[in-house]
Amino acid sequence: MDALLYWVGMAAVAVNALTGVLDSGRKQMDLIGALLVGVATALGGGTIRDLLLDRNVFWVVDQTYLIAALGTGFITFFIARALPVHPRLFLIPDAVGLALFTIVGTQVALQWHTPWLVASLMGVITGVVGGVLRDILCNDVPLVFLKGELYASAAWLGALVLVGLQQIGTNAITASWLAMAVVLTLRLLAMRFHLTLPVFSTQKAE
Amino acid sequence: MDALLYWVGMAAVAVNALTGVLDSGRKQMDLIGALLVGVATALGGGTIRDLLLDRNVFWVVDQTYLIAALGTGFITFFIARALPVHPRLFLIPDAVGLALFTIVGTQVALQWHTPWLVASLMGVITGVVGGVLRDILCNDVPLVFLKGELYASAAWLGALVLVGLQQIGTNAITASWLAMAVVLTLRLLAMRFHLTLPVFSTQKAE
Amino acid sequence: MDALLYWVGMAAVAVNALTGVLDSGRKQMDLIGALLVGVATALGGGTIRDLLLDRNVFWVVDQTYLIAALGTGFITFFIARALPVHPRLFLIPDAVGLALFTIVGTQVALQWHTPWLVASLMGVITGVVGGVLRDILCNDVPLVFLKGELYASAAWLGALVLVGLQQIGTNAITASWLAMAVVLTLRLLAMRFHLTLPVFSTQKAE
Repeated sequence: MDALLYWVGMAAVAVNALTGVLDSGRKQMDLIGALLVGVATALGGGTIRDLLLDRNVFWVVDQTYLIAALGTGFITFFIARALPVHPRLFLIPDAVGLALFTIVGTQVALQWHTPWLVASLMGVITGVVGGVLRDILCNDVPLVFLKGELYASAAWLGALVLVGLQQIGTNAITASWLAMAVVLTLRLLAMRFHLTLPVFSTQKAE
Repeated sequence: MDALLYWVGMAAVAVNALTGVLDSGRKQMDLIGALLVGVATALGGGTIRDLLLDRNVFWVVDQTYLIAALGTGFITFFIARALPVHPRLFLIPDAVGLALFTIVGTQVALQWHTPWLVASLMGVITGVVGGVLRDILCNDVPLVFLKGELYASAAWLGALVLVGLQQIGTNAITASWLAMAVVLTLRLLAMRFHLTLPVFSTQKAE
Repeated sequence: MDALLYWVGMAAVAVNALTGVLDSGRKQMDLIGALLVGVATALGGGTIRDLLLDRNVFWVVDQTYLIAALGTGFITFFIARALPVHPRLFLIPDAVGLALFTIVGTQVALQWHTPWLVASLMGVITGVVGGVLRDILCNDVPLVFLKGELYASAAWLGALVLVGLQQIGTNAITASWLAMAVVLTLRLLAMRFHLTLPVFSTQKAE
């Protein structure tokens, strides 16, 4: 289980670094700016989770994560400058990253014996906070909050499925794969069929 | 005292979740986006306080707070979609929330034996950071920093009154109610009579 | 060494509070708003570093830092309202602050026995996060990420020089002064000769 979490986490870090660097291209950032946005996108969710749980921050203890984020960001920066990249190309890796981080985050919280609702929220936080930081650093309204196809909601449902399955005694590894499939399937179906949640919009005066 | 802090904190969480969800309506957020903004508004100030003091984060230990924030946010979302809501209607609950959170935050810091100026700032942080997060997540300049009627300054003065009263030996519960009255009165008077602080504005070229 | 770190840190806090308050002038903030932006600019980098390292937050333990930030901010606010201030005047203090904070941050991390790459990043975080917070609070894209003369990169190179020098056995104080000179020289040369890094920019559709 721990080895699985480790490698799944590493893959998610690399995928998120890639999306962070690509998005920084909208704002004329230089190499270091793009790398820092990539690192924040890749490590931000897990960092907030670890701070909230009062755990040692994962990449401070094991700098392999930091090297993975920087390395992926560095390569992405130079490839993306040379080749035109269509942003929709990265929606699928991004969905995979969301599923991976959500499950890793929920598992970490469960092993830390948080209450169940907190554990599911830690999964959501691990999954989406990186992207929120990326959007704040690029001075946009975070995409995850805007109306659009299911994103945080897919993560949350998957996290709740994971918590529920382990509650009824399912093996942790089986439960993880199932919950990951739930997040990924929901997210991909949502993109394909434009599944959305109710939207709240006011024109109220400031 | 502890029971008082508990219920006052819970009330402040609910009030802040409500204002967070209402404000998210300006940005076309969906249900989960609005809920997450509501949760960040409700729990953000106390979370930052707990991280700075190296305490266990209050809602990770006791998920009742998280449930209160989510529940209030959920109900607010559907009521606000159905009924037109005038934003000024919520300035008074917001002022109450500010007073509650400021006093709770200062008390927590005093019980943690921080230096006095730090304790008063923890009160301000607990009181205003939720709203700052809400505005950052909605991509606005945080209202609390802009010129306008006394807000953070009302909180700070109340927190200093609380610290001072306890220093001269006033009973903690009496001091809390008095300080809460100071924050609330100042804020309401400021809204009524447009009390403001000096403003600093430059037109300097970037 | 500890006394040096202490006073260098205090000087950096004052310089950053000054730049934070000056920048807040672009957004019509009132006294308390400007002070809070100044405090966040002055204390933000070291705070994030301490949270990531799970140290006691430096200004919660010793409120002298907080008093220095508030005092400097207060004086700056009233001087800047009375006198027109040309922003370029503060680029040199800002460069000094960057150099000071970077070296302090890296030293603190090294004393905490983090891995070397993490230590260098802690230097960068201590040096630049205050300014990032200032820009987020003022609702701008953080300047440090945008194309422009070397900034975070000057800090990172200096931090790596410091780590390298101590690795090969250089005395900590000598290494600190040398690394500080590297950051400052690079930053000043970059401003003088407009040294920049490669930029990445896309016009990709949202």
